[in-house]
Amino acid sequence: MAHADSPRPGPAPAAPLSGRRTYRLVLAYDGTGFHGWQSQRDVPTVQGAVVQAARRLFAGEVRVTGASRTDAGVHALGQVVALTAESSRPAVTVLAALNAHLPREVRVVLAADADAGFDARRSARGKRYAYLIDNGPVPAPLLLRYAWHVPGRLDLAGMRASLAALRGSHDFSAFCAAPGREADPVCQLRAVHVRRRKSLVAIVISADRFLHHMVRNVVGTAVDVARGARPPQWLSEVLASRDRARAGPTAPAHGLTLLRVIY
Amino acid sequence: MAHADSPRPGPAPAAPLSGRRTYRLVLAYDGTGFHGWQSQRDVPTVQGAVVQAARRLFAGEVRVTGASRTDAGVHALGQVVALTAESSRPAVTVLAALNAHLPREVRVVLAADADAGFDARRSARGKRYAYLIDNGPVPAPLLLRYAWHVPGRLDLAGMRASLAALRGSHDFSAFCAAPGREADPVCQLRAVHVRRRKSLVAIVISADRFLHHMVRNVVGTAVDVARGARPPQWLSEVLASRDRARAGPTAPAHGLTLLRVIY
Repeated sequence: MAHADSPRPGPAPAAPLSGRRTYRLVLAYDGTGFHGWQSQRDVPTVQGAVVQAARRLFAGEVRVTGASRTDAGVHALGQVVALTAESSRPAVTVLAALNAHLPREVRVVLAADADAGFDARRSARGKRYAYLIDNGPVPAPLLLRYAWHVPGRLDLAGMRASLAALRGSHDFSAFCAAPGREADPVCQLRAVHVRRRKSLVAIVISADRFLHHMVRNVVGTAVDVARGARPPQWLSEVLASRDRARAGPTAPAHGLTLLRVIY
Repeated sequence: MAHADSPRPGPAPAAPLSGRRTYRLVLAYDGTGFHGWQSQRDVPTVQGAVVQAARRLFAGEVRVTGASRTDAGVHALGQVVALTAESSRPAVTVLAALNAHLPREVRVVLAADADAGFDARRSARGKRYAYLIDNGPVPAPLLLRYAWHVPGRLDLAGMRASLAALRGSHDFSAFCAAPGREADPVCQLRAVHVRRRKSLVAIVISADRFLHHMVRNVVGTAVDVARGARPPQWLSEVLASRDRARAGPTAPAHGLTLLRVIY
């Protein structure tokens, strides 16, 4: 902006490009009270909360992009976000300043200056999700918000074997909510682990990318196998069919947590 | 009650004692939305919720006693409850029937017929509590309801040493919210364990009995030691003083969970 004592008349020059700064944020959130990541009119979303907090700190247009458009009810321990704004604030002060304006359920856990050309979504080389299952006979009240209650015997060895068959690069259309809408249905599933601790079962899945509802559809289908409703080889048959109609039910959103985005 | 065809006139005899039945229930609950265990007028309490659910199942007077009168916001994985009612229901059907009428945040996890003379409160020989501390630099959203956020370096070795000095039978008046109101201030502290897993610190305390706010006052005082604000021997000095004014702050309720009642 021109100084008040500037001798030159006429319109103020545009803000220099160097005034816009991109921060790379890592966010944790409890998704229970949000209609997912992506901004929507009239309902609380995580992106909306971040934009609102950022507008309290920065004048002018604020741009907030998340690595993953998590569904309504899905949680995050390591969502990665690019925040671009007109700013001279050093990154170290941005963390506390944003947290002061965010709801308690959303926290910035790391803030740094982004490398040139950083794109939270397109630069991501992989993501890791955890899905929690409460396998107790009665739903545990302390897990209500964070785990899907599936009572009864679960054959975890069968579940592991069936999930192992998904490793590698495949067309995951059969596990995608809207297969026709994905430009590229091929994902490289790098690792799947199933662990039990007492009545809590955790499924951790890493891939280079995920299609819409992919983790929840894989988990729902794998739970059908673990329950004994389907044989372990069913998952590879569903995968090979590329037919969404053949997969099991979509596991509920609240059991899912985005753990990490890898760059 | 007298049968309709009873030949004898006059007042009906009292209900036979055999018609009243006592169940022993184990309850888990998320205490966030409750004003503690004990029934109060006009506010939701856990005891109130159990009484209300029981009234849907049993005609006549219902009596519900809990082993521990947990404070507002305190959680439970193993609260033990005696439920006495006019009933012919076998215990195995009571669990599902009560759960059908309880809010999701309260679950009966076990139900059995109580032994004769069972008193949930007076028959208890011990209790175990866990206190969770979120020691991360920023409060973790997924732990908001279940852990006290204490950032900064915590000297857990110092905390362990100071807590170990509380083991055994002592007058715990210094850690009691209202020392004058307790008939007997002597408790036998059987075990204290402090464990860390990443940024989560768990303090597990077992004793034959606990005074009002005792766990929370012990934890608040031990955290002052762990922060380095006080030397490790401070806890034994406070204990010996029997003076509530000398102890540290009361740790917040939401970090506390009743794990188990021992009979």
